[in-house]
Amino acid sequence: MNIKPLGDRVLVEPVQAKEEKKGGIIIPDTAKEKPQEGKVIAVGTGKIDDEGKKVPFNVKKGDKVLMPKYGGTEVKVEDKTYQILREDDILAIIG
Amino acid sequence: MNIKPLGDRVLVEPVQAKEEKKGGIIIPDTAKEKPQEGKVIAVGTGKIDDEGKKVPFNVKKGDKVLMPKYGGTEVKVEDKTYQILREDDILAIIG
Amino acid sequence: MNIKPLGDRVLVEPVQAKEEKKGGIIIPDTAKEKPQEGKVIAVGTGKIDDEGKKVPFNVKKGDKVLMPKYGGTEVKVEDKTYQILREDDILAIIG
Amino acid sequence: MNIKPLGDRVLVEPVQAKEEKKGGIIIPDTAKEKPQEGKVIAVGTGKIDDEGKKVPFNVKKGDKVLMPKYGGTEVKVEDKTYQILREDDILAIIG
Amino acid sequence: MNIKPLGDRVLVEPVQAKEEKKGGIIIPDTAKEKPQEGKVIAVGTGKIDDEGKKVPFNVKKGDKVLMPKYGGTEVKVEDKTYQILREDDILAIIG
Amino acid sequence: MNIKPLGDRVLVEPVQAKEEKKGGIIIPDTAKEKPQEGKVIAVGTGKIDDEGKKVPFNVKKGDKVLMPKYGGTEVKVEDKTYQILREDDILAIIG
Amino acid sequence: MNIKPLGDRVLVEPVQAKEEKKGGIIIPDTAKEKPQEGKVIAVGTGKIDDEGKKVPFNVKKGDKVLMPKYGGTEVKVEDKTYQILREDDILAIIG
Repeated sequence: MNIKPLGDRVLVEPVQAKEEKKGGIIIPDTAKEKPQEGKVIAVGTGKIDDEGKKVPFNVKKGDKVLMPKYGGTEVKVEDKTYQILREDDILAIIG
Repeated sequence: MNIKPLGDRVLVEPVQAKEEKKGGIIIPDTAKEKPQEGKVIAVGTGKIDDEGKKVPFNVKKGDKVLMPKYGGTEVKVEDKTYQILREDDILAIIG
Repeated sequence: MNIKPLGDRVLVEPVQAKEEKKGGIIIPDTAKEKPQEGKVIAVGTGKIDDEGKKVPFNVKKGDKVLMPKYGGTEVKVEDKTYQILREDDILAIIG
Repeated sequence: MNIKPLGDRVLVEPVQAKEEKKGGIIIPDTAKEKPQEGKVIAVGTGKIDDEGKKVPFNVKKGDKVLMPKYGGTEVKVEDKTYQILREDDILAIIG
Repeated sequence: MNIKPLGDRVLVEPVQAKEEKKGGIIIPDTAKEKPQEGKVIAVGTGKIDDEGKKVPFNVKKGDKVLMPKYGGTEVKVEDKTYQILREDDILAIIG
Repeated sequence: MNIKPLGDRVLVEPVQAKEEKKGGIIIPDTAKEKPQEGKVIAVGTGKIDDEGKKVPFNVKKGDKVLMPKYGGTEVKVEDKTYQILREDDILAIIG
Repeated sequence: MNIKPLGDRVLVEPVQAKEEKKGGIIIPDTAKEKPQEGKVIAVGTGKIDDEGKKVPFNVKKGDKVLMPKYGGTEVKVEDKTYQILREDDILAIIG
């Protein structure tokens, strides 16, 4: 089964952040708005700009990203949970 | 009887998501904003962009889509219930 | 007496939806935002776009339309009740 | 004394709608937002569009119009009460 | 001392409306949003439009204007009280 | 130490308005939104307009200005208190 | 590990402001909206303007900046806490 997000939306699989000693990203529990790690599964059909051209995505399939935990819409496909959110809501790419 | 949505609206027939073991999309009950599966019955008359040209739709008649459950307006035609919603509110195309 | 709506407004005469067995549009009572059937009596003077040109209407006099029940302004002319609403608030054309 | 509305504003003299049997506009008491009949006394200095040109008014001095009852600002000149409101708030021209 | 309003702002000296018998503007006490008469003392440095050109003011020094009573910011210079408000908030020029 | 405001922001040093007999600006205590005198210490890096050009500032270093008392962000540098606010929030230049 | 902010976002490492006698920036405790010193660690992938060109950043890696304390999203990488915020929310560059 295949999910193609619409417009500037992105399908992301949340990744449980491991509490590593060094090099890992640990989301502080006290943060007002908790970000969440995830992996981009699919980018959308693309946003159209004022001149009718498609705006390229900054993220691509496979990218690891930081996103707000409660900013998108949760869907379940084949027992896995994903998030569909607009690309502009993604905070950063983790490399 | 025929319904032609106005502007960038789309007419969608909601599809009851079957609780399949594998390959089906199961909407989690605990999700804050539950998406709903549906089938596109008709696309609208089209949105006009700043240069007076019609913006093409990303969805077409027959597409299976994911949409927010309470984002559009419900209408009943010949005993069937449909939703009229703006295309930008559709989350994804399911293929 | 003649009423010419201003700008992108449309004058619509609400039509009481008959509760037909087959082929009729029945507005469900439980819908959050109930749509209403109506007939377009007059379109407005037209909206002007950014380049100073008039944007054509998608609806025309005589069209049967679906509109939100409480979205416009009610006026009474010669004992009939009409609604004046912006064209973008019309949900669909019924054909 | 002379009042020249600024920008896209219009000076309107409200007209008490007579409760006629036939052909008159009777504003229903139960309407959520009651419109009011009026006569255009003066149009404004004009709105300037993005290209620096004045946007022409759709209404002119002498037009009978329908406007929302509480949408503008009330002023009294020589014992008469007028309303100053933006042209886009006028609902329709009555002819 | 000299005050030059910034951008599209205007400096206005409020004028106490005299309760004249004929020809005067009397602000009704019951008006929801009371307008106030005033005299333009200085126009601002000007608003810049999208093409980098200054938008000309519709009011000029010396004009008598109608403005909302509580729409601007009150300042006192040499024992006189003035209002600084955006030109678009001025309702009309009185001539 | 040097502070360069970002974009269309301005760094202003508030000046305590002296209660002069003549020629001074006295902020009335009863004003709904009290303005505050200040001196421009530095203008920002500049706002970019739609065509990619920097929009020039209307105020310059050394200008005496009127600004809203609580509209910006207060910072303390070398025991002095400053305000960083957007230029559009400055009400007027005092000359 | 590397974090690349998305769009016009910036990754900033907050710096604890030392309470210096002279030349230091001391954030007053009573300020309504407390700014915070920080060091820019990485700028984003860039914002695209209306003509499809990337808007250059006003800040660069290594800049010391003033930012609102609670305006961004807090992330922890390798035991250090950072803030991801939009460049427009940065108040000033400290030089």
